[in-house]
Amino acid sequence: MKQLDVCLTPDLLHLHSLDNSIVVVADIFRATSCMVTGLAYGIESITPVATIEECKALQLKGYLAAAERNALKVEGFDLDNSPFSYMSESLIGSQVAMTTTNGTLSISKAKAGAVKVMVGAFLNLGALANQLRAEQYDILVLCAGWKGRPNLEDTLFAGALAEALKDEFMLMEDSVLMAQRLYNQGKNNLPAFVANSSHVRRLQRLGIQKDITYSLQTDLYDVVPVLRGSKLVAHH
Amino acid sequence: MKQLDVCLTPDLLHLHSLDNSIVVVADIFRATSCMVTGLAYGIESITPVATIEECKALQLKGYLAAAERNALKVEGFDLDNSPFSYMSESLIGSQVAMTTTNGTLSISKAKAGAVKVMVGAFLNLGALANQLRAEQYDILVLCAGWKGRPNLEDTLFAGALAEALKDEFMLMEDSVLMAQRLYNQGKNNLPAFVANSSHVRRLQRLGIQKDITYSLQTDLYDVVPVLRGSKLVAHH
Repeated sequence: MKQLDVCLTPDLLHLHSLDNSIVVVADIFRATSCMVTGLAYGIESITPVATIEECKALQLKGYLAAAERNALKVEGFDLDNSPFSYMSESLIGSQVAMTTTNGTLSISKAKAGAVKVMVGAFLNLGALANQLRAEQYDILVLCAGWKGRPNLEDTLFAGALAEALKDEFMLMEDSVLMAQRLYNQGKNNLPAFVANSSHVRRLQRLGIQKDITYSLQTDLYDVVPVLRGSKLVAHH
Repeated sequence: MKQLDVCLTPDLLHLHSLDNSIVVVADIFRATSCMVTGLAYGIESITPVATIEECKALQLKGYLAAAERNALKVEGFDLDNSPFSYMSESLIGSQVAMTTTNGTLSISKAKAGAVKVMVGAFLNLGALANQLRAEQYDILVLCAGWKGRPNLEDTLFAGALAEALKDEFMLMEDSVLMAQRLYNQGKNNLPAFVANSSHVRRLQRLGIQKDITYSLQTDLYDVVPVLRGSKLVAHH
């Protein structure tokens, strides 16, 4: 039977063998919620890059540049890290280069060893689960966390995916059990359950409660972003 | 106000500044439960060491040697890693050198930067909480985990300590919130809550269910092991 495991932060990725695994990267507030939204609204590809400089270099080649550091937009870039910025008709068919504090770094790390890299969010939870059921590989959910530390919202997403796939995958390790139990504890009111988390407090100070509420909605889109080469593209 | 935080595994300790913190190391199954039991029963000191070789070297100097690797006793050593082995009258006044897969390594790591290192278990939870209330420092609970990965039982202990100290300490970070919520979810029946964890399954195969049940009991002892130089000694 296939196994589903969770890595609570990219700083623990060295403990996992990825040889036979699909890695699902989750950065719920807000990188992977933006990616799912953008691809659902018709962006052609999103290229995750690790640094501001790489992002600027792609901007010079005609990409739209999206950058966030410490939850703030970066000067001179086309897009910020709010999912609502990714709903514009003007973005249809565009190529986006994106760098964020945690999410894009996790994707880079995952790319090094995994069979395949996908992007997850509550927004595409059901579609992602269906896609993963059809694959023959183990799954590692890589929570992007915050600067190396685990965070609540990404852990909850991992738990939600584990709960959705528990009949088809073995849940063996304690990290996935903890994520699953936290999700079951909070699932009836996720916004209330994350209200005291460190990241939510950080974001609320920036006045972006609506991004939080939006990103905790389940199954708005059926798109699954998959990494092909250096680009995330939509798998419907 | 003082802060209490949790580090879910020693592999994340680099993310924490220990300058102003007391580190409480927890390795519930079974190193820190053994330490608390042994000091409560009259062992004079326990010297945690990282390697089997260091432990043997101290054995030659007259220490009793305790070693565990992968949950098994090591050939030629005086004590194993079952808390019941630490209840013998013959141990009163003795010096013990101990090495275990996870717990003693965590103590070594903590020693490098912390103001003070204490040892926690469910067995001494209340005494430990009282001691920490009287201190002026922040607290970091360092969960020993299993070979770098977070585990359920140590996380639950961290949550129990956070719950006990929530009125006197700020609980700011997501790791401590997750631990606290898991503890509150499981506290009415901890043995059932940990029954599916990876470590419990590992230990059950070795036939040591009684160690598990014992180690999940709260407030059997009022001893708080504190590191003085290289030795853990009892603080009553």
